[in-house]
Amino acid sequence: MNPRDVVARIIEGDRLALARAITVVEDGLPPSREIIRGVYPHTGRAYIVGITGSPGVGKSTLTDWLIGESRREGKKVGVIAVDPTSPFSGGAILGDRLRMASHALDRGVFIRSLATRGHLGGLSPATGGVITLLDAYGCDVIFLETVGAGQSEIEVMKYAHTVVVVLAPGMGDDVQAMKAGIMEIGDVFAVNKSDREGADGTALEIEYMLDLAGRTGPWRPPVVKTVATTGRGIAELAARIEEHAAFVRGSGGIERHAARVAETEITEVLKERVIGSILRDSRSDGRWHNVVTAVAGRAMDPYEAAELLLGKEPEGVERDGRGDTR
Amino acid sequence: MNPRDVVARIIEGDRLALARAITVVEDGLPPSREIIRGVYPHTGRAYIVGITGSPGVGKSTLTDWLIGESRREGKKVGVIAVDPTSPFSGGAILGDRLRMASHALDRGVFIRSLATRGHLGGLSPATGGVITLLDAYGCDVIFLETVGAGQSEIEVMKYAHTVVVVLAPGMGDDVQAMKAGIMEIGDVFAVNKSDREGADGTALEIEYMLDLAGRTGPWRPPVVKTVATTGRGIAELAARIEEHAAFVRGSGGIERHAARVAETEITEVLKERVIGSILRDSRSDGRWHNVVTAVAGRAMDPYEAAELLLGKEPEGVERDGRGDTR
Repeated sequence: MNPRDVVARIIEGDRLALARAITVVEDGLPPSREIIRGVYPHTGRAYIVGITGSPGVGKSTLTDWLIGESRREGKKVGVIAVDPTSPFSGGAILGDRLRMASHALDRGVFIRSLATRGHLGGLSPATGGVITLLDAYGCDVIFLETVGAGQSEIEVMKYAHTVVVVLAPGMGDDVQAMKAGIMEIGDVFAVNKSDREGADGTALEIEYMLDLAGRTGPWRPPVVKTVATTGRGIAELAARIEEHAAFVRGSGGIERHAARVAETEITEVLKERVIGSILRDSRSDGRWHNVVTAVAGRAMDPYEAAELLLGKEPEGVERDGRGDTR
Repeated sequence: MNPRDVVARIIEGDRLALARAITVVEDGLPPSREIIRGVYPHTGRAYIVGITGSPGVGKSTLTDWLIGESRREGKKVGVIAVDPTSPFSGGAILGDRLRMASHALDRGVFIRSLATRGHLGGLSPATGGVITLLDAYGCDVIFLETVGAGQSEIEVMKYAHTVVVVLAPGMGDDVQAMKAGIMEIGDVFAVNKSDREGADGTALEIEYMLDLAGRTGPWRPPVVKTVATTGRGIAELAARIEEHAAFVRGSGGIERHAARVAETEITEVLKERVIGSILRDSRSDGRWHNVVTAVAGRAMDPYEAAELLLGKEPEGVERDGRGDTR
């Protein structure tokens, strides 16, 4: 199939074309640019729900329930797992994988895992590209599952309109750990495994952390107690996500989100284009090898190396003292 | 103090100058470039030990012991915590923080936490810069503590000569999760809390995963059982780290590592310089706002936007079918 056909088929809702295009985009193969450009005008309609939390809190089982809720409303669903522990990624134990099998056979659900592998700009390019493809394919909602509270996960959550943070009782340290970023980006908090001891304490701790983080504006993130194994609290969680979506839609959030994602996408393309071409050129004529060897041996510093690669006259280290403020 | 004085003082081992320089580098303030350039020729001597694992496995307590071991050998120690759950980062419960207080008062130990915040190139630039400063300050060993197995943590571990992966029994899912990258980058594995049930099983599982990952070359990563609360197994862990260091030194690993880090550093500077200048220029003349608005509204795609910013004639999407392989 040529890129133009792939684009047409994705927009018509062809699963096979979508699957192929995702592989092309994920692997960064040459036609990916043409495919993304072709589908781009047909995107911007999907609502993206991010689901994040530490391994073992039950993110995937919750996602599974939320897929079911969306399907009952007749929505077309996409799922992207950038989570090595997710059963969607094939990274978890057999029992989990079996539990997901129902949705895997549902033609209204398209599930795809993304490898958490290295890239010039981290995970973002592939994630953004795959979201674009699922959006063009006609998904009404896309669940984006990531693990943990690392920088790359927080970056990925920038693609989401609504971010659901999942915690579990008895992970007190984790709530503390999440101070670093998750408290700022979470829109809805789920305390899963809330039939276990300590669930109320965890919920209170989250409320306290939200106070500390100053999350008292027009949208105060709700804290919902769930038991993913039985489905308890799922309806409320889905309702809170829907409330947040209504809030986002009613407060210009869709447009702000689109602008934020556009900024990320443009920056990623710039990185690929500019840095990629510098690396290619300087590798092919041996300059890259020379500057790397010089920097590794401390005969040159990385700034000098970058200037040489950019064809600029290297600037010396400032030799005269100025602005001495002692 | 001007940058030249800061450089001279860091090399003389001035703690205050080091602390100030780290803040400058972490915040990306203007003098950081001059400081890094100034100290760069005086670096390349420190041995970097990365310590990574999920929250709650006891990384910080293990690190605390390893600091003690290095101090007994008279080594000058640096600690960088890019881990929001680390007591070094002030992110954990009070008990942990108190436990660390001893080393915080030791003048032969310099501890610094790095915020896990956004940056064009992820965490790497600040981490690399701070390692360079600690190296110039005369640290013989630098412990680099990160949490989790996310992409950014794996990126950070590229700075380490030896990577210690810490696990704990009863986290079976975690061992599975680690398939994604940690099994490839770990040089020494510690099963901490090994007085708990399941420690032998976890150790066996790691051995099995190492087999699966093909880690059977000249360095087979050892698996050490530790109890950080009592210190059991710490001497063996330290010995295994030392063995790996000897292996690295004896097999050209220092030079390969220096080249790898140089590649990362040069690429980061290129990103900052090139992308940073494109963003600045296009923001100041309004082009950035225009292309972001156009892409957000799907009137333009990110590739077209990037081409416009780079001053190139935008290429159209391929209009004629070619290479149809159906």
